[in-house]
Amino acid sequence: MAISMHSASAPVFTKMLANMLGWLDKAEAHAAARKFDAGNYLGLRLAPDMLNFTRQVQVACDFAKGTMARLAGLEVPKWEDNEASIADLRGRIQKTIDYVKTFPAAQVDGSEGRSITIPMRSGDPLNFDGEVYLKHYALPNFFFHATTAYALLRHAGVDVGKGDFLGR
Amino acid sequence: MAISMHSASAPVFTKMLANMLGWLDKAEAHAAARKFDAGNYLGLRLAPDMLNFTRQVQVACDFAKGTMARLAGLEVPKWEDNEASIADLRGRIQKTIDYVKTFPAAQVDGSEGRSITIPMRSGDPLNFDGEVYLKHYALPNFFFHATTAYALLRHAGVDVGKGDFLGR
Repeated sequence: MAISMHSASAPVFTKMLANMLGWLDKAEAHAAARKFDAGNYLGLRLAPDMLNFTRQVQVACDFAKGTMARLAGLEVPKWEDNEASIADLRGRIQKTIDYVKTFPAAQVDGSEGRSITIPMRSGDPLNFDGEVYLKHYALPNFFFHATTAYALLRHAGVDVGKGDFLGR
Repeated sequence: MAISMHSASAPVFTKMLANMLGWLDKAEAHAAARKFDAGNYLGLRLAPDMLNFTRQVQVACDFAKGTMARLAGLEVPKWEDNEASIADLRGRIQKTIDYVKTFPAAQVDGSEGRSITIPMRSGDPLNFDGEVYLKHYALPNFFFHATTAYALLRHAGVDVGKGDFLGR
């Protein structure tokens, strides 16, 4: 017994992405109650040289998408980063959930030893086997951007709590 | 082939905790350069009703400690939350790394189906099997608090980047 590569990836992504949809609902409710444009969340940043809220959500989605494709040995599909509203971000998240769900377990299981190469904007590409890639790169990055998106909403006064993060 | 329960937990914790030691080094360097007391980081919060920096680090450590103990079927050791300086937090993190390393693989492997019960301050306890506990509760919580600790330093102007988060 052990955790299969599909079981260690797909349901972790889809559960947290579904939780993220709930955060957006609460963000919109907060904006409506305070009578401000929910689009104002999109540009929020924790520091001026950090990615804004829109990019945090997009990049979290991209780590889910890219991880599934790479573990399955497929080319990572390119999606335009053109979301300009909370509704658009909801669509991006749902599209990502749907994409992750297209992978049957058999397409990902057994990818522990698959050679994964990640091109870097600067410097040499990163090389991993599938298991190290998932545990030490893909999941930490995914949770990093999901948590930062959550933190931006929390910092902005949205009524989200740990239960919303974990999706209980 | 698949990921063993030990391999999916212990090295994920020890790697990120070691990365966290590096963030503390950069936080101290930033304080020294700006000539402020590095103890000023300890009380930082992203929102007044969120845990402060000290607690984020302590709780990240506790999720690593508690996960290892619970998967192994041991009582979770209780540690005092008495850290009052960056040096103390460094000690807490190192103590956690050392504790995680006390678990040989055989003590944790095969815990996928182990029944895990988490008492909650309010309401009914949470019940999981070992695999669901690790994937959907323990790791998301650990990364949540690690990322929030990182975000607090980043927000405070410390020169940390994604490479520091991931430990490349």
